[in-house]
Amino acid sequence: MPIYNKLIEIRTQPGINIHNITSHIKDFIAASTIQNGQVLVFSRHTTTALVINEDEVRLLEDIKVFLRKLAPESDRYLHNDLHLRVVPEDEPINAHSHLMAMMLTTSEVIPIMDGKLGLGTWQSVLFFELDGPRQRTVCLQISGN
Amino acid sequence: MPIYNKLIEIRTQPGINIHNITSHIKDFIAASTIQNGQVLVFSRHTTTALVINEDEVRLLEDIKVFLRKLAPESDRYLHNDLHLRVVPEDEPINAHSHLMAMMLTTSEVIPIMDGKLGLGTWQSVLFFELDGPRQRTVCLQISGN
Amino acid sequence: MPIYNKLIEIRTQPGINIHNITSHIKDFIAASTIQNGQVLVFSRHTTTALVINEDEVRLLEDIKVFLRKLAPESDRYLHNDLHLRVVPEDEPINAHSHLMAMMLTTSEVIPIMDGKLGLGTWQSVLFFELDGPRQRTVCLQISGN
Repeated sequence: MPIYNKLIEIRTQPGINIHNITSHIKDFIAASTIQNGQVLVFSRHTTTALVINEDEVRLLEDIKVFLRKLAPESDRYLHNDLHLRVVPEDEPINAHSHLMAMMLTTSEVIPIMDGKLGLGTWQSVLFFELDGPRQRTVCLQISGN
Repeated sequence: MPIYNKLIEIRTQPGINIHNITSHIKDFIAASTIQNGQVLVFSRHTTTALVINEDEVRLLEDIKVFLRKLAPESDRYLHNDLHLRVVPEDEPINAHSHLMAMMLTTSEVIPIMDGKLGLGTWQSVLFFELDGPRQRTVCLQISGN
Repeated sequence: MPIYNKLIEIRTQPGINIHNITSHIKDFIAASTIQNGQVLVFSRHTTTALVINEDEVRLLEDIKVFLRKLAPESDRYLHNDLHLRVVPEDEPINAHSHLMAMMLTTSEVIPIMDGKLGLGTWQSVLFFELDGPRQRTVCLQISGN
């Protein structure tokens, strides 16, 4: 069975920011021969996440407020005691970002039917940066017939 | 490799309600020739979710209470300012439903072994309506040998 | 297409505890012939979860504190009224564990590229026991070329 891999590079902004990567996925499917199968979307980081939801600008702001309240940056976290860990000099203070990532997800699998990405009308594939700015990598893997 | 797709239609009730779709998935596997592989379950909506957990009636009530507290409908959300967005006349006030969906998940992949769905004893595949009533669609995709 | 299944058995400790299962997955891939494909990791329980994040000892303690606050064991839950349910004598009081599991995830899919598990530098596959001690089973399924 044919399997195609692609890496998407994303340059993110400071703090929490959300990137719609749906068109990258659609283009990759269109360039392949797969008519029936699935795409695996996988983020290679511990302070990012993938979410399938609506790309509406005001909702994305609500989401940021919600995540900041869910895991407040100002809370006391053991992971942030850098002096008690062996870390590089530029180690970020980011326990809250890890917690947000854990509560969302690292992988999504979406069906491909009749050569098209099987998302519903209002669904977009959103990449969440939770501790920017960084250079990030998302893996796409298409498989099928 | 054989790949089979099926769409399940679900008519939901008002507010949050939970539908056990395990038997639909088992029937679909039984009707196929797949002995070894997996099933992808994918919901095509931004205010629904899929959860694999126990279908115990009192637990499901606890879950509804938990979700309503996690993302209260009465909180202030920018997405709910319909007068500031270009929306159809019947646009719902549902930012809280999007947030609940985001915190759960849109896709689940379950192994098929010896022709059977590889769930544990207490696991069911549950479809969560978070903004009903609606007509909803869930994609099933079986692949394997 | 070749598909290989393996069950991992995990003996857990009381309460919440976290087990890094990455080496089990890497060993299984190394023992297979798959160079390009994916691994499905699936937990067969309703009070456990899978998380892909950093295996840093202080972060894991932060995660336990976070989960206990998210779904406090001391809250009132209908599922815990064992006298109102038909249950075995050793039924645990564990609604909070179900809620934690629901908020995390039961399945993860990770790409395999060039014969290697496609995790990022800081990513580990972590199995979360949320209601130990128990004997637990995680399914691994590798597929690809």
